Amino acid sequence: MTLGNDISQIAGSLIDGVLLTQLKQISDERGAVLHMLRSDAPDFTQFGECYFSEVVTGCVKGWKCHELQTQNIAVPRGRIKLVIYDRREKSASQGIIQEFELGRPDAYFRISIPPGIWYAFSCISDETALLVNCADVPHDPGECKVLEMRTREIPYKW
Amino acid sequence: MTLGNDISQIAGSLIDGVLLTQLKQISDERGAVLHMLRSDAPDFTQFGECYFSEVVTGCVKGWKCHELQTQNIAVPRGRIKLVIYDRREKSASQGIIQEFELGRPDAYFRISIPPGIWYAFSCISDETALLVNCADVPHDPGECKVLEMRTREIPYKW
Repeated sequence: MTLGNDISQIAGSLIDGVLLTQLKQISDERGAVLHMLRSDAPDFTQFGECYFSEVVTGCVKGWKCHELQTQNIAVPRGRIKLVIYDRREKSASQGIIQEFELGRPDAYFRISIPPGIWYAFSCISDETALLVNCADVPHDPGECKVLEMRTREIPYKW
Repeated sequence: MTLGNDISQIAGSLIDGVLLTQLKQISDERGAVLHMLRSDAPDFTQFGECYFSEVVTGCVKGWKCHELQTQNIAVPRGRIKLVIYDRREKSASQGIIQEFELGRPDAYFRISIPPGIWYAFSCISDETALLVNCADVPHDPGECKVLEMRTREIPYKW
């Protein structure tokens, strides 16, 4: 399932617990200001860690799945294809794959991915993309599962 | 006063309350992972807002000074010259100007700027720079003072 970039249309059809939030881009001839996350946002719970992941054109990072950590991801530079897969046994959207494009100016969203969702992303822009994640708990390799990009356990071909 | 990029040498001579923290850059042929801020960092207090400020080559943003907000700034793309000025009446470093360059790979620091310090920054790279700020309270124009770049109140020429 590939989703468009009109979040008012797709909000109702997202994998259970996934949230898309349109982020402000404030123009300025010296350079834009780009919102990412505020502690008074309706979906903010707590802050754990902010880090960046660069993705070279054509490369894929993933699959990953967290047991505890919620990801809050946006893409301030370049363009990312993000794929999420719901493998949670008791989820209403179990078995669903969803694809998103993230990047400016038309798809500058924050996507919130709850624990239990598998995700992977690739860079689809000519320039190396920069993904930011403001996760709700600090990175801990003990709560993160990984699968190979070409795993048979996820019905998606990169 | 222009400071070099060896933070072990300059940590003792910073404006009072300013902190520099070396950030990890984890190499990966698909794209690096770049640390920014964790909630278990020794200098972490609370999370207010994460946002980006782009700066076009040669442009300057500032001067600004916050009454309440502490800035936690790093530069994951491009290169920034950051200038800070201590105008706090009771500060041991009152009247001091300090300049920093921020950018990868040699100057990927987080600089923490407490309330009461004036700051401004320019882009000194050929590419538009991207500055990230994880401030401890959300942006509130009511607690932010501004001065023109060419003000006579700050002894620095842009």
